[in-house]
Amino acid sequence: MSKSPAKLTSSPPAASMRPLDLIRKKRDGGELSSDQIGFLVRAYTNDEIPDYQMAAWLMAVLIRGMTGPELSALTAAMLNSGEVLDLSDIPGPKVDKHSTGGVGDKTSLIIAPIVAAGGVTVPMISGRGLGHTGGTLDKLQSIPGFNINLSLSEFRRVLKSCGCGLIGQTAEIAPADKKIYALRDVTATVESPNLICASIMSKKLAEGIDGLVLDVKTGSGAFMKTEKDSVHLAELMVETGERMGKKMVALITDMDQPLGLRVGNALEVEECIEVMNGGGPADLREVSVELAAWMFYLAARTPSLDAGRELSDKLIRDHSALRKFREIVTGQGGDPRSIDDPMRLPRAQHQVQVSSPASGFVESIQCEQVGIASLMLGGGREKKEDLIDPAVGLVLHKKVGDPVREGEALCTVHYNSDARLSSAQSLLQQAYGVAAKAPAEKRPLIHRVISGKRAQA
Amino acid sequence: MSKSPAKLTSSPPAASMRPLDLIRKKRDGGELSSDQIGFLVRAYTNDEIPDYQMAAWLMAVLIRGMTGPELSALTAAMLNSGEVLDLSDIPGPKVDKHSTGGVGDKTSLIIAPIVAAGGVTVPMISGRGLGHTGGTLDKLQSIPGFNINLSLSEFRRVLKSCGCGLIGQTAEIAPADKKIYALRDVTATVESPNLICASIMSKKLAEGIDGLVLDVKTGSGAFMKTEKDSVHLAELMVETGERMGKKMVALITDMDQPLGLRVGNALEVEECIEVMNGGGPADLREVSVELAAWMFYLAARTPSLDAGRELSDKLIRDHSALRKFREIVTGQGGDPRSIDDPMRLPRAQHQVQVSSPASGFVESIQCEQVGIASLMLGGGREKKEDLIDPAVGLVLHKKVGDPVREGEALCTVHYNSDARLSSAQSLLQQAYGVAAKAPAEKRPLIHRVISGKRAQA
Repeated sequence: MSKSPAKLTSSPPAASMRPLDLIRKKRDGGELSSDQIGFLVRAYTNDEIPDYQMAAWLMAVLIRGMTGPELSALTAAMLNSGEVLDLSDIPGPKVDKHSTGGVGDKTSLIIAPIVAAGGVTVPMISGRGLGHTGGTLDKLQSIPGFNINLSLSEFRRVLKSCGCGLIGQTAEIAPADKKIYALRDVTATVESPNLICASIMSKKLAEGIDGLVLDVKTGSGAFMKTEKDSVHLAELMVETGERMGKKMVALITDMDQPLGLRVGNALEVEECIEVMNGGGPADLREVSVELAAWMFYLAARTPSLDAGRELSDKLIRDHSALRKFREIVTGQGGDPRSIDDPMRLPRAQHQVQVSSPASGFVESIQCEQVGIASLMLGGGREKKEDLIDPAVGLVLHKKVGDPVREGEALCTVHYNSDARLSSAQSLLQQAYGVAAKAPAEKRPLIHRVISGKRAQA
Repeated sequence: MSKSPAKLTSSPPAASMRPLDLIRKKRDGGELSSDQIGFLVRAYTNDEIPDYQMAAWLMAVLIRGMTGPELSALTAAMLNSGEVLDLSDIPGPKVDKHSTGGVGDKTSLIIAPIVAAGGVTVPMISGRGLGHTGGTLDKLQSIPGFNINLSLSEFRRVLKSCGCGLIGQTAEIAPADKKIYALRDVTATVESPNLICASIMSKKLAEGIDGLVLDVKTGSGAFMKTEKDSVHLAELMVETGERMGKKMVALITDMDQPLGLRVGNALEVEECIEVMNGGGPADLREVSVELAAWMFYLAARTPSLDAGRELSDKLIRDHSALRKFREIVTGQGGDPRSIDDPMRLPRAQHQVQVSSPASGFVESIQCEQVGIASLMLGGGREKKEDLIDPAVGLVLHKKVGDPVREGEALCTVHYNSDARLSSAQSLLQQAYGVAAKAPAEKRPLIHRVISGKRAQA
């Protein structure tokens, strides 16, 4: 048994920059300085700290947590590991929305056109789907020709001309996050609210935005299953954004059943077009308008949230949002005819219904299971490398609270291959809970709103 | 945000053997099965699990702790990663002693000859010194010709002929511990009582012993500074050894000042010879006799602990222990003349005194500082690769409670190089606390005894 002879170092610096000391301090629940966290992130990104030391530190962070200043320092260090867009040459405020992800969660495709049509710039850098959740990029790529792989200078051009750009992560943005995320993925350190917050915020703040609306999902189809966990993550992100000078608000929205009626990439694009045409499911429309209204309000485009809601409604009603969407699709190389004629979007060859085993009311829908069913059909990815089929997915006919008769269709499966069809069908059958009585309480669509000081009226 | 789609795996095994699941379980404070821990240790030792995953798991273990069955499983897995000696062809019980390490802690060189002289086999596999603590192997190697690098078959031969062998760790013993320890050393996971226990016990139980006496040091020169921490580690080791069928006892002994008067390799060998000649410092003699007595008692060589003490005293008095030591030294290639004439041991070229700055009483000796002073002179290693100078070290003239006059020698420094002499001198000066009054309380030499059920009368 022996101790490393730390005391032999002649006059150690006041704040140690030795990886071992920093791991030890976090391990014992101490608070690291901004410089120490900056050093760790920089050195790890430059391959000067080995994976095993970062893994030990990440596990200590997951278990011991972080203070607000530590989390801001981590976010800033990850943000500054790459390029941060300077959009000051584009007049007016820039705002964005980020969702923690869910099933049928397609609001970005509705919100971005609404807000851009309202004159506020939306520089949206999104992610792909992984596991049971879908991704904005995959949905956009189901539009023939749509190019999400713009360089940052092309992105800037589209932003200037359309007021909105929708692209994927580029190598220039937050490379530290890319490296740290890959390590978290294989060391069981993904599920840390602090690390989740730093990962999201470092990428979003690289967009050069003034304000950010967070859609933090809660329920069986969300990453955070409980409202408590969702609120905690929302508070961390709002606080971190505030510390970094941004206007921040987080809406805790329901993900205990899919949002809207369609799950799957082209199917979801079609549903977004329905909403922008003034139709579509009420829940999807309500959440989209609420998020857009907050974006208008954060951008000071409207004097109140109510005025933001009215503006959003108007921009849907007068088809400005749909026109803007057509403009964005065209600007990024997509075929605008697919907007006017959704039959031009990829279509699955086969359809089959999943029927209710009993009469009664839909009591619950295990939302994550629905997402996994879509994934099994080829609509999502298990691993990052997987290819997806844009055409497949589900159309729900029944949602929670709806009456149903025995043998009536609960949902329709759109598929191209029989391979995992029966697994997906039985998963869907199990996902629906049918009871004799309607559920007593209806979950709200918007559970809570958590706003930063800068976002308050 | 997304979750890895764990649920897609068709019919996962009842107890998962996926490293990520095992890290996650320990991270969340769960208990791993014996099979799961065995799998982790085996796979890591075989390079099938990367360092970063093991690092995350070790950090989770350090923070979350382990249950008794988990710790036994870890110890067993590390033990069984290598060769376990079968000494059943050597008649009679085999016992050993292990110390957690300290400054001037030289009892092995006294105890092993006493117990072997008493007819009990002592298969002692020891470690080197690192940092401020000394190591048995380094002390033995200051005896000209002494070979600590015996193969296991040579070790067996010496054990049969002398009843005792003193060797270093071989590659065959607990390779899992070697690999895990190297990782702990660079991931701030050394200081986990569970991991410390598994590391010590996996190596000691490979010796094929029936009983083990643990000398767990406590105080400023020990790895565990507080009695609470020392007792906790002792309890873990006793419990683990018991679970694995061994007779176990732990003595919590004082390391708040150096044991005996000499610190440094050849200097300590000389002091051991003094004790075996019936002289030497009282504290060293008392601790050695106490530990030897417990070894006799665990081996059922004496019916009581008191009888063990009497036997140990007798074996010193009649020079049987010293004869046995001479026999061991000869058996392992050393020059027995250095036992009879310690002037043949390595001697430093220079000596200088450290004097008391004031008159009064020695109130305290910062024991770790004394160890570091010896290390600075070349008597220890900062890094594993460092070479040591067997001749250098310190002879203390004053210990806690002793009266001292201003200018009187507190200790004598034995050195060969001026390089870090002044640093060592000032460290020693600072290590001694001199006060007007003698300290009110005297710390006991033996703080507590923690014995397993099998070791109780």
